[in-house]
Amino acid sequence: MDQTQLQKLDTTVLKWLDQIHHLVSQRVQQRMQIDTKSSRRDLVTNVDREVEQYYVQHIRNFDPEAKILGEEGFGDAVKSMKGRIWFVDPIDGTMNFVKQQAEFATMVALYEDGEPLMAWIMDITQHDVVHGGPDYGVYHNDEKLKLSDDIGLADGLVALSGARLLYEEPGFPQIAKAAIGYRVYGSAGISYLHVLTGKAVAYLSRMRPWDFAAGVALAKSLGLRVGTIDEQPVNMLVSGSVLVATDKAYADIMALLGKKG
Amino acid sequence: MDQTQLQKLDTTVLKWLDQIHHLVSQRVQQRMQIDTKSSRRDLVTNVDREVEQYYVQHIRNFDPEAKILGEEGFGDAVKSMKGRIWFVDPIDGTMNFVKQQAEFATMVALYEDGEPLMAWIMDITQHDVVHGGPDYGVYHNDEKLKLSDDIGLADGLVALSGARLLYEEPGFPQIAKAAIGYRVYGSAGISYLHVLTGKAVAYLSRMRPWDFAAGVALAKSLGLRVGTIDEQPVNMLVSGSVLVATDKAYADIMALLGKKG
Repeated sequence: MDQTQLQKLDTTVLKWLDQIHHLVSQRVQQRMQIDTKSSRRDLVTNVDREVEQYYVQHIRNFDPEAKILGEEGFGDAVKSMKGRIWFVDPIDGTMNFVKQQAEFATMVALYEDGEPLMAWIMDITQHDVVHGGPDYGVYHNDEKLKLSDDIGLADGLVALSGARLLYEEPGFPQIAKAAIGYRVYGSAGISYLHVLTGKAVAYLSRMRPWDFAAGVALAKSLGLRVGTIDEQPVNMLVSGSVLVATDKAYADIMALLGKKG
Repeated sequence: MDQTQLQKLDTTVLKWLDQIHHLVSQRVQQRMQIDTKSSRRDLVTNVDREVEQYYVQHIRNFDPEAKILGEEGFGDAVKSMKGRIWFVDPIDGTMNFVKQQAEFATMVALYEDGEPLMAWIMDITQHDVVHGGPDYGVYHNDEKLKLSDDIGLADGLVALSGARLLYEEPGFPQIAKAAIGYRVYGSAGISYLHVLTGKAVAYLSRMRPWDFAAGVALAKSLGLRVGTIDEQPVNMLVSGSVLVATDKAYADIMALLGKKG
């Protein structure tokens, strides 16, 4: 895509995000229907479904040949990364959405033949958006982001998945102890925003594709390191550990865990 | 104090908080001087000191007979809770202040003969204040807060001290596992704001007096439960575990830990 096309794509999705900000701001005033999925901690609401349907409808209209991989299942069964694929997480951090009415995000990413084209993460209540792509640059709202200082683990905050840390998944407690501090936000999108804006030096979780597609795309576009702690590359179509970090924090974590970078 | 005096007190301190919001917003644009105290994770900056000095100067002027107990030591050596005592934490969450320039608080509490009169907690960057007292009511900015629904641990988020959880201080991992989720914010003030506004059902940490004086005062004023997990009452002049929770979450935590409520 050329710059004009990327610009149009960005403008289009930012308009959707505006609409979603307004829609969700209205919905939090109303009574929600809350259901559980795989466990009592895995929630979905009518708003998750409504926002995903909004995305699917608008993406189909805007880019009818692309496939859509969405958390709530209104998209397509995607078996390969060939062609254009939209990853959609309508409400990331549904527990925060339900319990706090704050600290949740919406995430969208567009990939083509396995490579990121553009992605968007919005803290919905704050209407705070990081968006961009490798050939477009990365923006924090209207301001162009530059890669933050290359700070190592011992001098930086890390964001971690609370459950992975609490149940001592290998690597998580070691990283938390080596960092100058760790934070648990309960939302991948909110955690990615911290790393992208230089507030944290790393975010590690074990996630499904819609949880990490936008974060990985934006991190790569900005020049951050992206990998796994399983000595495998990130596979965009399966669940796995995903680490996004500064160069130094990435190297520190790999050394700490005795892994190849 | 009568309502007129409480109102004047509130108006006065809210003006100080406005000034501090503006002062700190300027200071984060500038180069900070960062020093360590007890460990590499225990930071103090020139801004912590400047804000405490601001408080001490204004409190001395406004309430010359009171004593002041401040984190950075510009106040008095306070040995008893007799008379009026101002507890001051200029920047709570200094690590977040330094690393994130967000997610930190300032806290002030006024006690008389051991009982809270009024307290204030402000998320400094968001300029978001919870303030009030037992004879005044508790306000979230201009809006009167009412006690949230009495939600138990299994249905609520808890905020916890990251270090206490990570090093498995007795009680912390059990509480994190029993709650529907836990969050680590790196600031007592930010954590108290979550409980006071009904976003979390409990906050537990082990803290020093200026870390908990305002949170305890506001929680009591709102009708939340306040206690320790050490089967001791909260001692306002020494460090200790401090739990603030809804009635149900408080009872759940005491039952979980086999303690008397």
